[in-house]
Formats: sequence, structure tokens, C-alpha cells
Amino acid sequence: MELDLQLYSVRTDLAVEAKEMAQGPQKTPIPGVNEEVEEEGGIKVTRLGVANNAGSQAIGRAIGNYVTLEVPALRGGDTGLQQKVSTVFAREFEQFLNRIGINKDSSVLIVGLGNWNVTPDSLGPLVVENALVTRQFYELVPDQVSPGYRNVSAIAPGVLGLTGIESSEVVQGIVDRTKPDVIIAIDALASRSLERINTTIQIADIGIHPGSGIGNKRRGLTQEILGIPCIAIGVPTVCYASTIVNNVLEMMKNHFAQVGDGAAHTKEIMGMLDDISEQERLALVKEVLEPLGHDLIVTPKEIDEFIEEIANIVASGLNAALHEAVDPGNVGAYTH
Amino acid sequence: MELDLQLYSVRTDLAVEAKEMAQGPQKTPIPGVNEEVEEEGGIKVTRLGVANNAGSQAIGRAIGNYVTLEVPALRGGDTGLQQKVSTVFAREFEQFLNRIGINKDSSVLIVGLGNWNVTPDSLGPLVVENALVTRQFYELVPDQVSPGYRNVSAIAPGVLGLTGIESSEVVQGIVDRTKPDVIIAIDALASRSLERINTTIQIADIGIHPGSGIGNKRRGLTQEILGIPCIAIGVPTVCYASTIVNNVLEMMKNHFAQVGDGAAHTKEIMGMLDDISEQERLALVKEVLEPLGHDLIVTPKEIDEFIEEIANIVASGLNAALHEAVDPGNVGAYTH
Amino acid sequence: MELDLQLYSVRTDLAVEAKEMAQGPQKTPIPGVNEEVEEEGGIKVTRLGVANNAGSQAIGRAIGNYVTLEVPALRGGDTGLQQKVSTVFAREFEQFLNRIGINKDSSVLIVGLGNWNVTPDSLGPLVVENALVTRQFYELVPDQVSPGYRNVSAIAPGVLGLTGIESSEVVQGIVDRTKPDVIIAIDALASRSLERINTTIQIADIGIHPGSGIGNKRRGLTQEILGIPCIAIGVPTVCYASTIVNNVLEMMKNHFAQVGDGAAHTKEIMGMLDDISEQERLALVKEVLEPLGHDLIVTPKEIDEFIEEIANIVASGLNAALHEAVDPGNVGAYTH
Amino acid sequence: MELDLQLYSVRTDLAVEAKEMAQGPQKTPIPGVNEEVEEEGGIKVTRLGVANNAGSQAIGRAIGNYVTLEVPALRGGDTGLQQKVSTVFAREFEQFLNRIGINKDSSVLIVGLGNWNVTPDSLGPLVVENALVTRQFYELVPDQVSPGYRNVSAIAPGVLGLTGIESSEVVQGIVDRTKPDVIIAIDALASRSLERINTTIQIADIGIHPGSGIGNKRRGLTQEILGIPCIAIGVPTVCYASTIVNNVLEMMKNHFAQVGDGAAHTKEIMGMLDDISEQERLALVKEVLEPLGHDLIVTPKEIDEFIEEIANIVASGLNAALHEAVDPGNVGAYTH
Repeated sequence: MELDLQLYSVRTDLAVEAKEMAQGPQKTPIPGVNEEVEEEGGIKVTRLGVANNAGSQAIGRAIGNYVTLEVPALRGGDTGLQQKVSTVFAREFEQFLNRIGINKDSSVLIVGLGNWNVTPDSLGPLVVENALVTRQFYELVPDQVSPGYRNVSAIAPGVLGLTGIESSEVVQGIVDRTKPDVIIAIDALASRSLERINTTIQIADIGIHPGSGIGNKRRGLTQEILGIPCIAIGVPTVCYASTIVNNVLEMMKNHFAQVGDGAAHTKEIMGMLDDISEQERLALVKEVLEPLGHDLIVTPKEIDEFIEEIANIVASGLNAALHEAVDPGNVGAYTH
Repeated sequence: MELDLQLYSVRTDLAVEAKEMAQGPQKTPIPGVNEEVEEEGGIKVTRLGVANNAGSQAIGRAIGNYVTLEVPALRGGDTGLQQKVSTVFAREFEQFLNRIGINKDSSVLIVGLGNWNVTPDSLGPLVVENALVTRQFYELVPDQVSPGYRNVSAIAPGVLGLTGIESSEVVQGIVDRTKPDVIIAIDALASRSLERINTTIQIADIGIHPGSGIGNKRRGLTQEILGIPCIAIGVPTVCYASTIVNNVLEMMKNHFAQVGDGAAHTKEIMGMLDDISEQERLALVKEVLEPLGHDLIVTPKEIDEFIEEIANIVASGLNAALHEAVDPGNVGAYTH
Repeated sequence: MELDLQLYSVRTDLAVEAKEMAQGPQKTPIPGVNEEVEEEGGIKVTRLGVANNAGSQAIGRAIGNYVTLEVPALRGGDTGLQQKVSTVFAREFEQFLNRIGINKDSSVLIVGLGNWNVTPDSLGPLVVENALVTRQFYELVPDQVSPGYRNVSAIAPGVLGLTGIESSEVVQGIVDRTKPDVIIAIDALASRSLERINTTIQIADIGIHPGSGIGNKRRGLTQEILGIPCIAIGVPTVCYASTIVNNVLEMMKNHFAQVGDGAAHTKEIMGMLDDISEQERLALVKEVLEPLGHDLIVTPKEIDEFIEEIANIVASGLNAALHEAVDPGNVGAYTH
Repeated sequence: MELDLQLYSVRTDLAVEAKEMAQGPQKTPIPGVNEEVEEEGGIKVTRLGVANNAGSQAIGRAIGNYVTLEVPALRGGDTGLQQKVSTVFAREFEQFLNRIGINKDSSVLIVGLGNWNVTPDSLGPLVVENALVTRQFYELVPDQVSPGYRNVSAIAPGVLGLTGIESSEVVQGIVDRTKPDVIIAIDALASRSLERINTTIQIADIGIHPGSGIGNKRRGLTQEILGIPCIAIGVPTVCYASTIVNNVLEMMKNHFAQVGDGAAHTKEIMGMLDDISEQERLALVKEVLEPLGHDLIVTPKEIDEFIEEIANIVASGLNAALHEAVDPGNVGAYTH
């Protein structure tokens, strides 16, 4: 039985999941990867730094900074919690900008990647719709812009299948003409575990890399390509069927190891599925699913509501973080 | 380890899946259940008759007639195939009406169950939007109705959470006042296997039973309740995460039994997961998933497009089957 | 030149406009019609009582109570003003209920008339979407309903062209089964003057009469038909092209009478158009427009945004007025 | 009474209307403006050539070619007629391309101007959604592109208020990077007469000029700016209230001149309104409307349906005209 065991076969766009998988159940620390975890009121904030090539290779992520907000209760529809997440996101995003040296006066282009016709891929366009844009005032009446508002523009470049143009080309064309100082790109992601869908927000200073996100974004949005920093904000909204299965097998393994007589018990129940590595197991699952064309990408039934809520959280948080004059407690007024 | 082994724990609204599970891998015939299978051009038509209580209990379905169209290639977006499915559906539906004694002059109320704000639950309302309704002409200008058009009305009663009223109560109120001869109720369903999502259409003369369909339709639409026959048309648009996992384990079992040395090999790979029954296995999966709140209901990422396509197929087919004057080759003109 | 001079030829669903026209420019008081006007912060509240047949015939409206909120600045998109209007609407609506003897414990069925596919006719369905419904809790867990919440259900019955069923029949069927104490029907209206479109809300205790509202609501929703009181809430969202023209001619007349030498001046500019009555003038305009099929019904270009805003105002106000536990300052949380 | 009599005060984006107004009721030929009219099956095709500066100044339009399709019955919802218009549009557009020297191999960028959130301004984005784009295949698998398909890309650049970026800047950025040979820009327009709304399609080789179209497109899309030819396709979807009134007064004038004793009669009825020029009359109307803020821009109540239909007609026609392999009789298959 020959299997493709490459790390990326477990499809996740989340650095925290890549790290977890690299660590394994023993949670061994990984050289070159620093981690700082904080938790308040149901919101877990993980600040991950990939410091060098060793760390990068170990978890299969680019060198850079990753901040992740995990809020398991977020799918419950609690508007109070949503507002709190928005406020924490705004605070973390502001600190993130400071940490990587983005100035208070830097002009920003917000890029909403994804396809507005595909609900789980519409996060980017939805955030763009709710972003507070001001560049037109800076261009037309620069002396009348109130203090506390940064120069912000926003675009949803569409997807290759609808436009015939790579979104990175559209963005580059706009960057060439409008000269923003920094790009903030929003994209829907795939995660490894169902529980992280629509409950997790990732901020990263590594831009968008080819092949990440839901659609077929074939070329990336990175500082190398664009010549300016690109901060990526992502929310997982889908899972591969194969990773769900694999993830559940992993959970079963851990579950049975805890009840009964532990290891022996698990081995008895799960056979070889207990022994092999996560990658091998996933390869097995795929071997079964793919010939039948079953390796669907799935999203929760309630995606319409979830995506609206999380897009509002991200847009409100962004508006508060980017414009000093926008009060974090009052950001809702600027979104639809 | 105590498990809830009741049959219905494997959540499916499809009679063909209930039958498959009752039969097991040996495909043992079931007394009281007749089956007739036809296949043409990629469309598999299964006509299932549950003739008596024995059959009913064996597969956990009400006594009645079930016709299922399975079209694995339907998710490919081929408009030619879609039109063919629509035509076959129209033909099968007409024969179905004849078989159960629905007259050519019977007036029909089409009921689109489900929530138009939840994409995978919006099948019913979408079909209603595209149904060719004529009752207003029968009421207002009865002598001017062209021949070949049946008296058809259509309503999407909404869901309990949005209206505060059970959809069955809304329907009953309308039935009391408008006196249709028969009800055709459209609803989105849950299936056991991912591959049947958005590729399968089920017609049944048993009405809608409480607890079937996606949402919380707590009371049913049946002849007992409504006093007139109720034909149900359903399309699976969602799966439980647990049934996906379970279904894949089943597929793994069958897969490994075929490669290598068969049974021994499978046992080695899958341990006890190989031995236990489907129900036991599902119970195991749920035991793992539920405490974590992970037993999400999921739908394919492309659900927006799928649901539009299949709603058009069903509406076009219904329009052709109900109105003699509507040409099956030309039904598209009546839908949006 | 023979003209149809009937009063209703000037198409308006607003009692205040019907009264204005009956009064003429001299603003002569009308026997049998009482009026009370209040103004606060840009919101003009007119409470009109049609006390007897004389009043009814004079203004062409049924005997009953009419409260109108006029907010000329409402189309400006000021969210502060919107919230204020919502609060005033809630207060007026509550007083209105008290005045006509609707009890605090009365159960309510909200009916959203109109067609959700036609933006200027979608007010009713949009309000229903944002109404706080509670009847399901009263039915299922009556002892667990928190105090301060009234029994409210809500339905959007669709329009005849889409369902084949008069909306009044759908409503009557539901009333028969669910036995509400009172109906609140929301409908989009036509006004005579462009400036009242999307800036005016009318509350009336006369129900919905055949021929009012935008669509073809052929049968009404009145106490005579339904057996329970029916309160109508309406917002003008459209004008006939002919009434726009006529209204502007009226404005021109008044305008020129004020500048220059008054009457003589106006006569010189406008010829016979100055002399004839509003009805005659409208008949003239229609005589010109109708053969060409030009008497379109029009709506402002920004209708998508206007209708959302006003639906939110009405829904928020209703939620606060119907449920004591809903804080008028905080009603936004219950609408989308 | 001082009035602003400039020609453009009568707001129309249609060359045929500008010409009509310049000609006056006597239909005097205009030097420098050639006209060719054809009519078939309810579709009137006018080919207007503005040959020199004299012609340009007379009608207030840039030198260039204008083809207009007028189809008064188009708002009737007749799908057969829609398909015919689409076919005639495709034929005229192809001839237009040939006439101005656009090669069969030229690559095309379709630009859908306007705001998708404002229904009457959403024509451009809707056409883009239904355009058959192929550039991605030319880029990725150039040797596998079937013959008969031209290199087409498409973008909806959004509007200044939503993006902070002039749509012309977005387009220029994309043109710089993707180097199309020609631009086809789709935009919703304003017309002078209600009857032309949603019944008229204009093709012009003069690009988009600042201030044309519905929104605030402040900078244009012209060959001077972009360096490549820009063909504009426009459909009027709105009217100013003032132009409706003015247009009806004009119709009244013509109407009364035909009945009764002609001129004297008209003078009697309409006073000075009969004598003065269209521009003076419009100025009068505006003088009355503007202080009250009533000069609303309006659109027909049925705009949602109209805009979908006409966007489909334009997209189908474009697909057939641009790609030889797309059969004009079958273009519907490529649009949604």
C-alpha cells in the first residue's frame, strides 16, 4: 500500500492546526515556533511566531506572526458575545499592526477574496461591503477629512472563473495606481476540524499563499509579489469530508485511550487505524473516498447565518482598529 | 459499553437507504418490500413498494409507494442532463399520480416546506416560486382557462421559528378554505451518504411525517391529518457529520475486504470497527462526537448552485406533469 | 371633453392626503373629520378621526382612526433619526392599541402583505422577517414563557399571482385555526406626492380594503371578513406617474401664485391648467398618458435601501409596542 | 425670471433623445448628424452617426457612432420577444464591431459599471455575471482553447462610495496588467421619457463620459484615458421626476394641438407652458421641485424583474456576438 504522506495532505489553512498536528498528542514543543496563549471570557487568543526555517518546515507554514482567536460558543448566535469578539479582534489587530510596524497614517487597501455567489466563500466580499472606506474623501476633499479616519479603500476582485483574471492581478493593478501602504486580505479558509468552522479567526502577516483559501486562488498576495506588506485575515468555513472522517478517527482513538484499559482497548477497537500516523490514516480515507468522487468539501447547514455574523464581527473589528474615531463599543453602526 | 441501537439512529429520509441498511451487504430481499429498478442514460429509477407491516417495520418506513431517481452526475452542472432528469421526473411523477389514482382534473396545492433563509432548507420555497399556478384563473375567469391547464395553487408556509405557527397548521387552514383534491409537499431531506446529496429525488405517497426533513417540522402532513392525499417530493441536501464518518467506515470496510486478503486484512486494519453492526458503529461515532457538540449537519460548499439547479429540475418536471399543455421539452420557459 | 371626475382618480392610500385634497388650498375644516397634529424633532404626528358618514364621504375613507407619522428627513439615512422614529412609532402604536381597546394580553397575528420579489412591494414580508414571534413558545412550553412577551405569530401570505390564492383567504384559514385576537397587517402603499414616499407611516384601525396597497389585493382584510379587529400599517413606496405630474402642476400653481403678481401671473403661465380642479387636471394628464401606456407606477431609485430601513423601523417599533419586555431603546437587537 | 437654459439640463444619456430634442417637433435634419432607421418585428434600430463638431454641438454628444434598439413591448415579459431582441442585438453589435474595425481576434475586457446594491444601477454587474469569460483558458491552457471562442475577461469594479476608488482607476489598473485590445463598458442610464426605460439599448463607440450613467461616475472610460477603444452599452433604467413632468407637458402640448382647434386650443389650456421651449419649461419645473428636494430619480416599480430580463438579453447578445462558437439561437444556455 503506497500512500502520499506529505504533510499538507491534511488540508488546513490554520497555523494552530498545523502546529497541533506537528506536535502530536504529546504536545512536544517545536524549535523555532513560539506560542503565547491567553483566554478571557470564552475567547482563546493564540499568538504564534514562526521564527526560522526549522520552525517553518516543522509546521509547514511561512516564517511570520499568526494570531488566532478561537471562540467555541460563537455559533450560538449570542449577539453580546459577537460584540465582545469584535472588540477583542479590534484590539488584537491593532497590536498586530503595531508589532509589525504598520504606522497609524498608513493607507490601507482591504481586499475581499472569494466568490459572493458561493456562501461559504463569500466572507471577503461581505467584509468589503461593511468596511468603512474613506479614500474618496482623501482624494476629493483632503482638507475636510475629519481627524481619526485613516485612508482606507476596499475591493472584492472576484474569482478567476467569473472574471477570467487572477484576483492577484486585479489587486496588483489597483496597487500600482492607488499606492496603498499595506494590504489587508480577507479570505475564507478550510480547517481540519469541524469545531473550528465559523468559530475561529486567524490574522497573519504572511499574505495569501497560492493554494490557500477555499477557491482556486492560484497566485498569491504576498509582499514579494506586491511590494507592500500584506496581512491576511481568515476564517475557516469549510472542511474536506476526508478530514472530518480522519479527525473523528483521531478523536475516537483519544477517546478510547481514556476509557477502558487504554491503549490495548483502543487497538482492539480500531485495529491498525490506531497505530498509523494521522497522515497515513488520511491517505487511507482518501484512498477509499476519492475513486467514488466523494471527497466533497462541506460547510455547516447554517452557513448563511454564520457567514453574515462573522463577516460583521470582522468588519466591525477592522473599522474600529483602522479608524481611531470609530468607537469599538459602537462599531455596529458602520456595518449593515 | 451501552449503546442506543435503534434503527433510526442512522438518520436518513430516503427509503432506498433505509432499505439498503436493512438488507445489509448481502442484499437479502425483504419480505413485504417490492423493488423495481430501471436505468437509462445515467438516471437510476427505483420503484419501491412497502406492501405490509412486516415490510414497514423491516425498513422503518410507512406502507406506501416510493420512487427514487438517482443521478450521480447531476452535481456536474451539465444543463443537458438536468433537462433529461426533469423530463424523466415528469414522466415518473405522472405515472405515480396515475398509479395512486389521482385524476387529471384533480386540483393540486403545492406546499414548499422549509426556510428560505437557510440555503440547504430552501428547496420547497424555491420550487413554489417556479411552479406554474393557475387557481386564480379558475376562480376569477373559469370559462377562459385554456384546456390543458390543471387547477394548481402553491404556498411556502414558512417554518415555526419564523412564523410561530406549525407549517402543518398553515396548510390545514388553507386546505379548509381552498379545498384542493391533493397536496404535493416539497421538502429538503437528510441522507446517509454524501454521494446522494443533491443527486437524488424521492417521490412518496405517504406525506410528510413528523421529524422528517431538515428543520423542525414537528407535525406532519398526511392524509390522516389533512383528509386528502399528500404526495411528498424530497431531495437530500444535508448529512449529519456522524453519518458521514460512519458511512466512510462502512466504505473502508468494503474496500479493504476487496483488496488484500479480504476479511482478515480488514479486521487487521479496522479492529472491532469491522465486526460491529452499522448501528453500533454509529453509536460509537456519536459517543465520541456528541459531548463535543460536533455532530454538525453539513452540506456541500456549492449548495447555492446545487439547490437552484435541483429546484428548477423539480419545478420544471412538476409543471410538465401537472399541466398537459406544458411541453416537457420546453418546461424551462415557465421557471425563472 | 368628458372626464371621469371621481374622487379616487387621484390615487392615494394615505388618509392625510385624501383629507388635504378634500380641503383644498384653503384648508377648510371638514365636518366629521377631527384632526390633531403634533410635531417633535422632525417627526410630524397627525391623528385623524373620521367620526361619521359625512366625514367618510368627504374624504373618501372609512370611518375610523388614522395616525400618520411624517418624517421628511427620513430618506437621509441618519441612523439616529431612524431609531427616534422607531421609538415614536412604538409609543404611538401602543397608544393606538389602547385607544381602540386592544388588551395587553391579546394575541396578535402580524400579516405581511405584498410580494417579496418586487422591492417596493416587499415591506410586509420584510417586517414579518424581523418580527419577534413567540406563539410557538405559548403552544409548546406555555409555562416557560418569560413575562413581558405577548403571544405573537407572523405570516407573509404571498400574492395571488405567485400562489393562486388571495392573501385574504390564506389569512382567514390561519385565523380559523390559530384564533388570534387581533390582526396587524403591513402593506406598501401608493401616495400622491413624491415627498411622502418612504418618509411616512400610517396606522389605521380600518383594516385593509380591496384595491388599496400596491399589488392586486382584490379582497380585503377587515373585521367584517375576519371577525376580529384588523389594524393596518402602511408606508407609501410608489407613485403613479400621472399623480407625480399632477402634483407638480399643483405645486407650480401654488408657486407662481406666490411670486410675481399672483393669480393673474399664474393664469398667464399655466392657462386652463390653473383654473380646473385637481381631479379635472389629473383626468387631463391621464388622457394624455394612458393611450401611450405610460402611466407607470414608479419608485425612487434608492428603493432597496429605503425599504430595508423603513421595514426595520416598523419591525423594531412593533416589537417594542407588542412586548413589554422589549426595550424601545434597544429594539434593534431583535431585527436583522 | 432667469433660467439656466443649457442643453444638458434635460437629463438624458440617449443620443436619440438628444437628437429629437435638438430637432424639435418639426424634425428638422441636423447638419453633421446622419441617421438610418430600420424596423422589424417591433424592434426599431436607429443608427446615428455624429460626423463632425457641428453635429456634436447641435445634439450635445461626442463625435462617433450610436446604435439604438427600441422595443416598446419589451416590458411585457414575452420571452419570445426577449430572445429576438437578444439576436438582433448580437447582429447589430457584431456589425458595430466590424464597422469600427474591431478584429475577430481582439481580446475584450467587459466592464460592468454600477452598484449591485442599487437595483436600477445593477445592470453592469448583472451582465458581467452572465458573460462567458475565457481569458483564464487563454492564460493557463492556451493550446486547448476550442476554436470560436474569443479571449474575454469581465469585471465589475464597484462604485466610489463602496470602494473608495474611481471605477476608471480600477479599470485602468486592470488594463495595464491584462492588456485587452478593447473595452466594452455596460452602464445603466437615465432617459428623458418614461417609455424608453427598460425598452431601449444603446451601443456607442465613444466610451463612458464623466457624468453619464446613473451613479456618480466622475471620471470617464474613454480611448484618451485608457489608450484602447471603449464601446459603451447602456440601458435607461431611471428618469428624473422633473423630466417626467416636462415630458408629459410636452406630450400634453402635442396632444391638445391635435384635438380641438389646434394651437389656439392648446394655448388656452396650457398658457405660457405652450409657448416656451422645452429647456425653459424644464427650468420652470425644476424651479418648483428643487427647493423642496423633490427632484427624485425614479424607476418603475417592476425594476427587479425588468433589470434581470434586460441584463440577460444584453449578456446573451454579447456572448453570441463575441464568440463565434456561441449560437445566437441558443445563447440562453450560457447565462443564469
